[in-house]
Amino acid sequence: MRFTVEVLVTLKPRLADPQGKAVESALPALGWTNVRGVRVGKHVRFEVESDDETSARAQVDEMAARLLSNPVIEDSRILEVREVQRT
Amino acid sequence: MRFTVEVLVTLKPRLADPQGKAVESALPALGWTNVRGVRVGKHVRFEVESDDETSARAQVDEMAARLLSNPVIEDSRILEVREVQRT
Repeated sequence: MRFTVEVLVTLKPRLADPQGKAVESALPALGWTNVRGVRVGKHVRFEVESDDETSARAQVDEMAARLLSNPVIEDSRILEVREVQRT
Repeated sequence: MRFTVEVLVTLKPRLADPQGKAVESALPALGWTNVRGVRVGKHVRFEVESDDETSARAQVDEMAARLLSNPVIEDSRILEVREVQRT
C-alpha cells in the first residue's frame, strides 16, 4: 500500500524564531497591524510504501524524530497519512 | 475576536525541490528505501485580531498571496482558522 504523508516540524514554543520575526516586521508596511506571534516551521510531504497504515505511521514517527526534525529544539506532528488509491 | 491561523506554503508541483532531494538522499543510510517524492514547504502560524472569521480569512488569503508566499513558484493554503477562547 502506498501512503501520502504530511508532517509538520515547528520550533518549540519558547525558542526565538528569527524567520517569524522577519515576517512580523514586514506586516505594518503592508497595512496589517492586527497580527502577532508569527512562527515559521517546515511542512514535509512524501510518499511511503508500507504494508498497512499502522506500520506507515510508526515509520513516519521515527523519520520525524531522526531525520525531519531536531527534537532538541523542534516539535513534529503528523498532519496526515492517507492511502493513495491506485487506478 | 482573536483567531489562530495556520498557513501552508508549498513549491508548485513541477518545480525542483533541492531541500526535498537532500532529505531523500539521506533516507537509504537510515534504512528507509520505501520513501519517495519528498517535498519541503513552509508552515506559518500566527494570531490575527478580526471582527469575524470571514474577514480574518480574507486577510489571511491576502497575506498568503502578498507576503507569505511567492505566487509565481509557490502555492498556499489555509490549514486552519480557529477562534481563540479568551478566559
